[in-house]
Amino acid sequence: MGLTIGVDIGGTKIAAGVVDEDGTILDTSQVPTPPTPEGVIDAIADAIKAVGEGSSADAVGIGAAGYVDDKRATVLFAPNIRWRQETLKDKIEQRVGLSVVVENDANAAAWGEYRFGAGAGHDDVICVTLGTGLGGGIIIGGRLHRGRFGVAGEFGHLRVVPDGLLCGCGSQGCWEQYASGRALVRYARQRALATPENAELLLGLGDGTPEGIEGRHVSDAARAGDPVAIDSFRELARWAGAGLADLASLFDPSAFIVGGGVSDEGDLVLEPIRKSFRRWLVGGRHRPHAQVLAARLGGRAGLVGAADLARQG
Amino acid sequence: MGLTIGVDIGGTKIAAGVVDEDGTILDTSQVPTPPTPEGVIDAIADAIKAVGEGSSADAVGIGAAGYVDDKRATVLFAPNIRWRQETLKDKIEQRVGLSVVVENDANAAAWGEYRFGAGAGHDDVICVTLGTGLGGGIIIGGRLHRGRFGVAGEFGHLRVVPDGLLCGCGSQGCWEQYASGRALVRYARQRALATPENAELLLGLGDGTPEGIEGRHVSDAARAGDPVAIDSFRELARWAGAGLADLASLFDPSAFIVGGGVSDEGDLVLEPIRKSFRRWLVGGRHRPHAQVLAARLGGRAGLVGAADLARQG
Amino acid sequence: MGLTIGVDIGGTKIAAGVVDEDGTILDTSQVPTPPTPEGVIDAIADAIKAVGEGSSADAVGIGAAGYVDDKRATVLFAPNIRWRQETLKDKIEQRVGLSVVVENDANAAAWGEYRFGAGAGHDDVICVTLGTGLGGGIIIGGRLHRGRFGVAGEFGHLRVVPDGLLCGCGSQGCWEQYASGRALVRYARQRALATPENAELLLGLGDGTPEGIEGRHVSDAARAGDPVAIDSFRELARWAGAGLADLASLFDPSAFIVGGGVSDEGDLVLEPIRKSFRRWLVGGRHRPHAQVLAARLGGRAGLVGAADLARQG
Amino acid sequence: MGLTIGVDIGGTKIAAGVVDEDGTILDTSQVPTPPTPEGVIDAIADAIKAVGEGSSADAVGIGAAGYVDDKRATVLFAPNIRWRQETLKDKIEQRVGLSVVVENDANAAAWGEYRFGAGAGHDDVICVTLGTGLGGGIIIGGRLHRGRFGVAGEFGHLRVVPDGLLCGCGSQGCWEQYASGRALVRYARQRALATPENAELLLGLGDGTPEGIEGRHVSDAARAGDPVAIDSFRELARWAGAGLADLASLFDPSAFIVGGGVSDEGDLVLEPIRKSFRRWLVGGRHRPHAQVLAARLGGRAGLVGAADLARQG
Repeated sequence: MGLTIGVDIGGTKIAAGVVDEDGTILDTSQVPTPPTPEGVIDAIADAIKAVGEGSSADAVGIGAAGYVDDKRATVLFAPNIRWRQETLKDKIEQRVGLSVVVENDANAAAWGEYRFGAGAGHDDVICVTLGTGLGGGIIIGGRLHRGRFGVAGEFGHLRVVPDGLLCGCGSQGCWEQYASGRALVRYARQRALATPENAELLLGLGDGTPEGIEGRHVSDAARAGDPVAIDSFRELARWAGAGLADLASLFDPSAFIVGGGVSDEGDLVLEPIRKSFRRWLVGGRHRPHAQVLAARLGGRAGLVGAADLARQG
Repeated sequence: MGLTIGVDIGGTKIAAGVVDEDGTILDTSQVPTPPTPEGVIDAIADAIKAVGEGSSADAVGIGAAGYVDDKRATVLFAPNIRWRQETLKDKIEQRVGLSVVVENDANAAAWGEYRFGAGAGHDDVICVTLGTGLGGGIIIGGRLHRGRFGVAGEFGHLRVVPDGLLCGCGSQGCWEQYASGRALVRYARQRALATPENAELLLGLGDGTPEGIEGRHVSDAARAGDPVAIDSFRELARWAGAGLADLASLFDPSAFIVGGGVSDEGDLVLEPIRKSFRRWLVGGRHRPHAQVLAARLGGRAGLVGAADLARQG
Repeated sequence: MGLTIGVDIGGTKIAAGVVDEDGTILDTSQVPTPPTPEGVIDAIADAIKAVGEGSSADAVGIGAAGYVDDKRATVLFAPNIRWRQETLKDKIEQRVGLSVVVENDANAAAWGEYRFGAGAGHDDVICVTLGTGLGGGIIIGGRLHRGRFGVAGEFGHLRVVPDGLLCGCGSQGCWEQYASGRALVRYARQRALATPENAELLLGLGDGTPEGIEGRHVSDAARAGDPVAIDSFRELARWAGAGLADLASLFDPSAFIVGGGVSDEGDLVLEPIRKSFRRWLVGGRHRPHAQVLAARLGGRAGLVGAADLARQG
Repeated sequence: MGLTIGVDIGGTKIAAGVVDEDGTILDTSQVPTPPTPEGVIDAIADAIKAVGEGSSADAVGIGAAGYVDDKRATVLFAPNIRWRQETLKDKIEQRVGLSVVVENDANAAAWGEYRFGAGAGHDDVICVTLGTGLGGGIIIGGRLHRGRFGVAGEFGHLRVVPDGLLCGCGSQGCWEQYASGRALVRYARQRALATPENAELLLGLGDGTPEGIEGRHVSDAARAGDPVAIDSFRELARWAGAGLADLASLFDPSAFIVGGGVSDEGDLVLEPIRKSFRRWLVGGRHRPHAQVLAARLGGRAGLVGAADLARQG
């Protein structure tokens, strides 16, 4: 099997791409993400057709945010698109006439990084995606660990603070409330509100108010030496590294791959995460340490990973 | 390969047993646990010889508390026995003339339960041992997940309370400080100290002081309706169930097996754990739930599991 | 000085009343609360005039939610009405021609309870109001403790959980997020969502969904034995009692008076609060215990207290 | 009344001193602290006689660690000396023939600082003593606030982390476990253990091991730029400042006075505490801020304060 098609469902657009065996994207198409659950299904089919016709691709992998069942066919629950028990595999196969595999989007991205990105040379890898929220994927012995019911790797909802911040999932204290792009902005806004004298540069990048601070402002201000911005990254890294230390106690991988928008900042965020990881790793003097690596594929990881999962069948 | 020998290293005694392919223990021997690291090695060899001579057993599995390397040969770090980089496999093979496999004791017990105990019919199982501390083992796809460096499954050191209780590992807030036999006794003592009027029965089972309360007193008092004892079990279950919910988000097993001395209390502790698990399981309405099962092998799990791991080679 | 006027500014209506030296309300008037900051000032004046004309009252006490300065004249910050540095005393004196004292509304209510309610016989009293949020007032040596800048007694913003729930004040983990009417409803909704099988009665009182649960449903269901409702009150009491224990370590009062809508439930909530208080009181065996009393004046406490503060001058 | 005698009971020595109306110590005596509860009483009497004979001092104030009743006569509970319901005032008066006042030692030190140290010009002052543990005293309206039962101001046992570190008081998560000299050393040892590469200087000041680190090493290393030592002070300050912010919400003083051995480091520790205080002060933009001042009397505060309390009668 040579070429396959990967699909990435984003909040604003749906992307499909023809991908070869080396993880190279040969051709892509995009359509806007429709507002209705059923509309999204049509749009996925359209995106696949747009890129697939005329290609020799004969299988499709779709990465979707939410719980995907163990048959990789049904989306049990997708919070943003409001799918419930959606038989996505069947519906897309009917519409495009190709065999379809559905996977959780963070799993697909993890697989992409494992196969074609930072994961080279590692067989036990944990991928953590610090985007707006926090997602993840698990590779054990060179295989994607999906769990018995298909819903493993929901790292973002590890409870790191009892009675902590409310999470969209209905629980409290979930890791993604403390280590994600959204958390970074909250840290910056809170600190800029309390001590504006230390956030002059940061506040100047937005509209001058704490509420006007966005993620890119925090990155830019941190690079320019703004104390509040630097402290916000340090707080994010404190929680991110402590969580990786937890995952090391549980999974003992040889490497962590940190991706997502936050990781685009490179060592600005990765070095403090590594430091925090070493700080909190239990038994750290008596065991080999997993590497903490930056993801390499950026936003392409999900699409490339989904395509490769379709190839694996 | 028919018979193998399993070894269980306890704080007061070392037990060896000849085990058949069905997990039945045919013969056993015991020696007291010596106080020195080197003495323990001699004692292990003695126990093996005592039971092995005359039997047809041709391989040995040893379960040891601590980090065991990925070759299952060297104990990297054993906190209680004070082994550091101890080449246990080589030393025992030289002494007893049989091939030896070393495994973390909680992993060995998990394997025992998976193969011959409560794990029947499950291929993705998480075992949690609530003993004095909290240990665990991971079975994924019918295989013991040891991690890249051999030290996976250290559930007891998952950080469940930031800045929480000091742990012997040097960290703070580790799960085993909140869900273990030691934690149960602490809950009971604290409550009996604060509200002795609710602990008359419990206090009467010991020497009348909070410090005199032991684990078995809490169990007996809870069965007899003592409010403080019941509340102590409820607190233990609150933390145990919440932690299982975390593990479900990460691993998504089909079953949890809860073992260790605390689990001997059966539904007194398992029902509240199940309730807490459901309470905290993220996305619980939208996903199948793992079963929470009581272990079946009791104190034999480690020895039987170690023997079977030796058989598997 | 015989009669004075007390004013209570609520979210939906503003009440004024003529109060005698025994704390008895002789006459009242009400006006709806206007939506604009300046409109509220006019409405206060209207309510005072409506009840004051023809009476011999010659002083006014106003209870306002927010920070009131040490001269009891200016509201520094009122989150709901959006007053900032509002010179309320001057403006109302000009409009109604009587001398005016402004006080924080929780302080006024505390004073009312101290003088005419549950505080009889106590000179060191802490009042805690469990309403929608959590407010409080401090009586030390028979005097209202306002603090150097007039803003003491903000109990609701004691940080009880580091990195805890977001609070409207911009901070995290504030006590009122865990012990208040709003918290009670959150507890009930979370539990009804996770374990609806234990909340059938509670869910039946609303529209059948967790989101439809209101405070009165939780009270009614708890009285009828609903497990989730009872557990929600227990959780509220756990946090309320632990916080009172903290305040006992700091202030060492002879009594706590617990008021607000939640306290209307009487022993349904007070008994568990007392139990939790004893559980967490530091050094409890070696010190006399403060009493935990139910407030007696209900919703009148603020108006009566404000009137009496005006009398004291 | 001109001269009075103050007594300070330390862990290793008992000091008595004749103090004049300006808080100046005119003469002192010292005796070693005996190991038995009754021995301490004799030693106190000896120290008083040694310094009192020949002086015109006619009253004695004694500062003792523990709960002192509202009559300032009986020590209800002293954890270190193991006094229980000890009628200290009567026993000392019988032995020395002078009138005696007993006070909690942190209260006495707070009074000393208020009268003759950093408290000049303030009438609402909170003193926080960061010594081995964390103690405190409250001055409201120019008077020492002792509480209804004499045991107010136990700041060290404010619960700042639910389910947090065990405290000698039997509770968990007490403030003094996070903000005290003992906490500082723990922070340094934990960090030096986890990341020795950042603590070379600090480790070199002791015996090279984390366990060999003492408080003075952390101070010296922090001044010399050691990253782990600096980070340890920052962590201490984070908790100290957050706690002061809590106390500001409750008491609203015009000033905090920070004393104890940790405060000897001056701005090395006070500046980060002030920063953390501003960071966590609720409503900080809408209220005047209390000053955070360094204590001035050092180790004399308790003795001088006790003497002055005796003068006040």
